[in-house]
Amino acid sequence: MYKLESTMPAPIDDPLFSRMAILGLGLIGGSFALAAHQQNLARDIVAFDPNVQHIAEASAAGVIEQGFSNVQDAVKEADAIILAAPVRAILSLLSTIRPFLKPKAFVMDLGSTKREIVQALNELPDDVCAVGGHPMAGKEVAGFPAAEGTLFKGATFALCPCAHTDHTTRDLADQIVRAMGASPLWVDAATHDNAVARISHLPYLLSATLAYAAAPEGISRQLAAGGYRDTSRIAASDPTMMLNILLTNADPVRAALAKSRAALDTLDQLLLARNEAGLRAWMEEARARR
Amino acid sequence: MYKLESTMPAPIDDPLFSRMAILGLGLIGGSFALAAHQQNLARDIVAFDPNVQHIAEASAAGVIEQGFSNVQDAVKEADAIILAAPVRAILSLLSTIRPFLKPKAFVMDLGSTKREIVQALNELPDDVCAVGGHPMAGKEVAGFPAAEGTLFKGATFALCPCAHTDHTTRDLADQIVRAMGASPLWVDAATHDNAVARISHLPYLLSATLAYAAAPEGISRQLAAGGYRDTSRIAASDPTMMLNILLTNADPVRAALAKSRAALDTLDQLLLARNEAGLRAWMEEARARR
Repeated sequence: MYKLESTMPAPIDDPLFSRMAILGLGLIGGSFALAAHQQNLARDIVAFDPNVQHIAEASAAGVIEQGFSNVQDAVKEADAIILAAPVRAILSLLSTIRPFLKPKAFVMDLGSTKREIVQALNELPDDVCAVGGHPMAGKEVAGFPAAEGTLFKGATFALCPCAHTDHTTRDLADQIVRAMGASPLWVDAATHDNAVARISHLPYLLSATLAYAAAPEGISRQLAAGGYRDTSRIAASDPTMMLNILLTNADPVRAALAKSRAALDTLDQLLLARNEAGLRAWMEEARARR
Repeated sequence: MYKLESTMPAPIDDPLFSRMAILGLGLIGGSFALAAHQQNLARDIVAFDPNVQHIAEASAAGVIEQGFSNVQDAVKEADAIILAAPVRAILSLLSTIRPFLKPKAFVMDLGSTKREIVQALNELPDDVCAVGGHPMAGKEVAGFPAAEGTLFKGATFALCPCAHTDHTTRDLADQIVRAMGASPLWVDAATHDNAVARISHLPYLLSATLAYAAAPEGISRQLAAGGYRDTSRIAASDPTMMLNILLTNADPVRAALAKSRAALDTLDQLLLARNEAGLRAWMEEARARR
């Protein structure tokens, strides 16, 4: 469970790809680019990003050979395309790049929800090798300057098969993930989305709720200790990324929210009644589940 | 805000007290005893704890001169009495020790809520020097073995005046707190309790709610990352301590809960309606407040 300490694997001897195009150089795409560069996954790495600052920074860091502000130029010579953007931007990029993909191109995304993306991957041309991906790592700082080549080291990396995930595609995805020090976990998109609604999106929403109800000011700012800090940490997550997640995973998120709201309703009744035995049982159950 | 790095102050030259009796050698009382011993706050430190194991461990560590399983014996020769127990146990101890307090004895508690305790302190004999205290530090491990002499270092230490808090008492409390590397913050009991309902008790309850709704199992255990871990951390807090807190601070806690539940209701409606602008505004507001 959770991220384990581990060392980075040795770089691979023979690059898996001639040209890898990374679409999006934010925290996740930038970290993927750094790891792909360090681990020798492709002879050339190129990138598309609408933010020219990210392109300039990645070029200056020597991570990418070339940067493009036009996505068509980035993908047309690539035999591996990695999509790293908010979920709905990935969906939009997939329809834009579709006509320009080389036959047998390897296509993987790094989006945070997988059902809508796997559906879109299914609609790519038949000769494309595609797979959905989601590295279970991140932080509350966005953008290329926050990227780290070891961000995925020790993390679980979910891989979701689509209609175009043949054995070769599966092997390539496993090799990429392992080369980055992460552990591949094959899981269907619906199972993934239901699980992350509970263990990733709900913690964010409860954390945000805490910021709503309890933002410290004055005296309470001085009294706030580690409990508030840790519990509210992920409320600082990027709203655009989270908006994309919530709008592409609304029903599983609402189901998870419903359980939390029911637990809070029970709790409020127990407090109103000063029900000592009931409160103790409620807390012991929560502790045991954790 | 939050706990800052700092070094421990030098031990004081002249002990403030002849005999300090610490009632309760759990995480907080044990840490207080260790700090009091290291910082030379009293010539002798004795302790009461119903758990003989705690007494044996503190004696073996050389922290206390003597341990008692009878509270009357612990307090009768003491000129400083520190109560470190769950809130309702402190209330009960205060009525037990009342007849045995020496004139001008310094009495301070370390309980997590302050209104009911300050009311009980007000009812002590007139010649007692009493003050409420609450160090804003802790961890999710209970008992003397988890105690640390530096637990309060860099933390805010709330001090709540009662009817018996004269200038001398106030000075003594300030000196004790500063000797432990903590920062005294004088605040009335009601303000304290309302603030901690929001920045301490609510985070615990939301964290417990998360454990209720999202305890990872199977696939989701492998997918769980730092967000779940940090947000659910304090759900592991000691239920007995939390029960005492909730039952002595039920109304402020319910008020804080009501704000969270309202925020979650709003959120659920926005998700149901797939209201993009509304969701973005909700998240940006949470982020800004944090």
